[in-house]
Amino acid sequence: MDLMCPLVDPRWCHLSQQPYVVQIILVSSDMHQGRKKRPPTHLPPITKPQPYVILHVRYKFRRCFVLRFQSSFTESSQLRTMAAQISGVSSTCSAGSFRDQSPGLAFDSLSSTRSSTISFSSNLNANLSIKCLETRRHHKSSTICSAVAVENNSGQIELDTTLSPRVNSVKPSKTVAITDQATALVEAGVPVVRLAAGEPDFDTPAVIAEAGINAIREGYTRYTPNAGTLELRTAICKKLKEENGISYTPDQIVVSNGAKQSILQAILAVCSPGDEVIVPAPFWVSYPEMARLADATPVILPASISENFLLDPKLLESKLTEKSRLLILCSPSNPTGSVYPKKLLQDIAQVVAKHPRLLVISDEIYEHIIYAPAVHTSFASLPGMWERTLTVNGFSKAFAMTGWRLGYIAGPKHFIAACNKIQSQSTSGASSVSQKAAVAALGMGHAGGEAVSHMVKAFRERRDFLLSFFRELDGVKISEPQGAFYLFLDFSYYYGTEVDGFGLIKDSESLCRYLLEKGQVALVPGDAFGDDSCIRISYAASLPDLQTAADRIKEAILALKTTVSL
Amino acid sequence: MDLMCPLVDPRWCHLSQQPYVVQIILVSSDMHQGRKKRPPTHLPPITKPQPYVILHVRYKFRRCFVLRFQSSFTESSQLRTMAAQISGVSSTCSAGSFRDQSPGLAFDSLSSTRSSTISFSSNLNANLSIKCLETRRHHKSSTICSAVAVENNSGQIELDTTLSPRVNSVKPSKTVAITDQATALVEAGVPVVRLAAGEPDFDTPAVIAEAGINAIREGYTRYTPNAGTLELRTAICKKLKEENGISYTPDQIVVSNGAKQSILQAILAVCSPGDEVIVPAPFWVSYPEMARLADATPVILPASISENFLLDPKLLESKLTEKSRLLILCSPSNPTGSVYPKKLLQDIAQVVAKHPRLLVISDEIYEHIIYAPAVHTSFASLPGMWERTLTVNGFSKAFAMTGWRLGYIAGPKHFIAACNKIQSQSTSGASSVSQKAAVAALGMGHAGGEAVSHMVKAFRERRDFLLSFFRELDGVKISEPQGAFYLFLDFSYYYGTEVDGFGLIKDSESLCRYLLEKGQVALVPGDAFGDDSCIRISYAASLPDLQTAADRIKEAILALKTTVSL
Repeated sequence: MDLMCPLVDPRWCHLSQQPYVVQIILVSSDMHQGRKKRPPTHLPPITKPQPYVILHVRYKFRRCFVLRFQSSFTESSQLRTMAAQISGVSSTCSAGSFRDQSPGLAFDSLSSTRSSTISFSSNLNANLSIKCLETRRHHKSSTICSAVAVENNSGQIELDTTLSPRVNSVKPSKTVAITDQATALVEAGVPVVRLAAGEPDFDTPAVIAEAGINAIREGYTRYTPNAGTLELRTAICKKLKEENGISYTPDQIVVSNGAKQSILQAILAVCSPGDEVIVPAPFWVSYPEMARLADATPVILPASISENFLLDPKLLESKLTEKSRLLILCSPSNPTGSVYPKKLLQDIAQVVAKHPRLLVISDEIYEHIIYAPAVHTSFASLPGMWERTLTVNGFSKAFAMTGWRLGYIAGPKHFIAACNKIQSQSTSGASSVSQKAAVAALGMGHAGGEAVSHMVKAFRERRDFLLSFFRELDGVKISEPQGAFYLFLDFSYYYGTEVDGFGLIKDSESLCRYLLEKGQVALVPGDAFGDDSCIRISYAASLPDLQTAADRIKEAILALKTTVSL
Repeated sequence: MDLMCPLVDPRWCHLSQQPYVVQIILVSSDMHQGRKKRPPTHLPPITKPQPYVILHVRYKFRRCFVLRFQSSFTESSQLRTMAAQISGVSSTCSAGSFRDQSPGLAFDSLSSTRSSTISFSSNLNANLSIKCLETRRHHKSSTICSAVAVENNSGQIELDTTLSPRVNSVKPSKTVAITDQATALVEAGVPVVRLAAGEPDFDTPAVIAEAGINAIREGYTRYTPNAGTLELRTAICKKLKEENGISYTPDQIVVSNGAKQSILQAILAVCSPGDEVIVPAPFWVSYPEMARLADATPVILPASISENFLLDPKLLESKLTEKSRLLILCSPSNPTGSVYPKKLLQDIAQVVAKHPRLLVISDEIYEHIIYAPAVHTSFASLPGMWERTLTVNGFSKAFAMTGWRLGYIAGPKHFIAACNKIQSQSTSGASSVSQKAAVAALGMGHAGGEAVSHMVKAFRERRDFLLSFFRELDGVKISEPQGAFYLFLDFSYYYGTEVDGFGLIKDSESLCRYLLEKGQVALVPGDAFGDDSCIRISYAASLPDLQTAADRIKEAILALKTTVSL
């Protein structure tokens, strides 16, 4: 079944969380062509979702019929359950998903009478939005006209529990989902090796911790300025000048509760509704979702493992439109570990420079975790790019300060002032204690000094171990990472295989679920990062843990191979 | 001049930050009534803002003509400069402002020819959005049809520096502005007494500080779960049950970087574009701006000092529409210190209960700072209100933990999960160190125990001192605050007076500027909180400082009186 359908009607019918029965009345108008069939007058217009809902549908050609769902549930099993429940359908009802991965159901309409009803019940613990679509092959105008309450099983007013469309448009994080599943297994006593998190396994260096302790002791626990303390912003300016070759003044810096907030606020500040945010894939999971939160459209530009997952400037150029507002670069990259060479960034800059609207967010959070001879280049340091670039960095990764929640953005004052304004109505300034600790972090010497280079050395050893391990494994494709602490390995060679007691490995998600359930290793499916052929392994774990994990992965993978060869 | 005009056209023409000359071509169609005058064909449609811009305007009746601006500048002096620059105008051009305080210019059109041009230049270091409006008295259809580039004074591509409309729609905080001005004076050596901040002047209690220090020492510096640690959320549930009589489970709590974030995320989660957020005035400055950030419409319901600034349930009922989605209550109130009696909350709950869509955010951040016999009632504890209420609280005010950045929201899981999802793409979990400290805060006993009641006692003494002082001052109207640490005093008796060397005191802003410049006391104009007749005095300062401030205010006010009586 093909659910790749264009949209006819942009209206979503939003249903609330309660368990409900959805009844869809099909009013055929194909015997009345040319005359528009209006909904029967006894059906009132949409007012609010109710536990029992009728969707009233007009359509011209009584043929294939598609419902598109937008929901916080994405489990295909739930969708299959719903499909199985559909009654009043003449033939089969199939579940599938659209290009954007939102779930859908397709079925034939049932009779030649002008009006009939299908229904299904939902006990999903989730909001549900639904709309009726034209199918590609089966013509026009299957449009949901109204959703009305026909039955209300209590005398009370039912509270409208719908959420904002912006919430429904944002996907829950798959990294969080797999982390939760791994946690549940660990709590159940299963010795899972967890290589899914994006967090160094080191403690915050002592000098930073002491600075935090002193801040508390000295009563440095009041509101800081919204943009961060002048002391910290001055230290950040010094760091950016000396380490990155880019000049900012303290009023061109905003310190936030983590680089994540810095990026979201920048997108909110510069993107108007309908603007395009260009995200090279594989990408950090949050970029496309943040674009959606800003009512902007993420435009994904894929890069393959054979290109070391690096954006092709020609592809970028071919995809630019007048709506292109933002390009998000991440180097060293999460999830691939790729580092953009300076020459490639220069080529990208040449493309960017020709566009009157295109700005760049340069996410440099993994800057210090880089393996020589790879060298980090700040995009803003390239000729003509300072004016267009919002440089994002933070303390979580290089300084093992994830729990302190501190990141920052630097850029032209005009844009930074807008970020500051958004922050002033969102969170105000970040933790005063963390800001004192961050000043100490920036005082540890070039690129974090000895403490950071010690961590980078450990990451490098782990990377090298995993690389040599997986190079021995048949069919695994590798792009050697030059930074960060992730391997992004292409396991698609094993898709299509099966294993007893689990079933088909059809994509990165089923492979990761298999490796978690059978191999007891928690990894993240590449699908979450926009590349379904790969899985991400975080090596922010000890070498013995990595050895255990690698052995388990190998064993599980070889079990797959055996199945294939039989 | 009256700029209180209804809107005709919702389209804003957004101009970028660069200095530019705005030329407006007036094409009169009043000699061609009935025929719609189209823009001349040689003017291309809007594509993007340019340093030089022509606004092409159609209008029916050649009369008064109003431009409305939406800009990050609000200085009336800048506006007056622009008005003075306007050329090609037949008579006077006046500057004024609209009800929402956005600036505007009004002028007569100039000639009876069908097309003519006015222009003005702007060197504002700010984005500017402009639209043309119908005036109340002068009829219809002065609509900006297109904005085009006619001239581009360099061969280079000009970077588009426009910001998202959502940024332009949000006003900068006046509390921040006056704080900045006070800081500048202090740095210049002026001994300003600062009573503008919303921050306790006490240090964080020692037991909390020690818990923070221990968290750092023990390496508790990693990412926490997005919603906050289970330990903290469990402690919050216990507190809400025991102190507030409302039952939640930990999955009905999200901990954020301050209550400000909790509130914004809740508004983003439940408000669809166009929904109405009902904000009783006087209000905390951020509520209406947060509604705007969520593309919702703030609906301000004023309450007067004679009603102790408390919302009238009948007024609420009369203003509810099908778009009403959220009511924001704040008790004890910032800025008024008013505490909602239980009976009044019950009356409000009865109105709320009848509405199928109306939810309530109950901002209880000042809960513990309350003066007997006043008693705090959690709105969610009223019958039928649990399902509709999102209870917001935090640690900043009661525990003097402003710099730790920690607040939380509690509510039905469906809504809280949505807040959690937004937070997962905005900031992730709050500081791990602060969360450990917060657990200690909740362990200090009922309502914060001895340490908090000690602070509340001090606040009460200060309140009583200020009350008796200002009761002696002619013309000042007072509603005795029952909580928080603010006095919200009606000084409108003194509006319309003048003083040598300063000029006219015409509103709360000019009064506060006068009291800052001449009296060296930093206060916040009531205008910022939606009540221009008042000013806010924060008494989170020592009694000697309050004595000094009060004397200075009195002296400055008496100088005003003298001027009047002469």
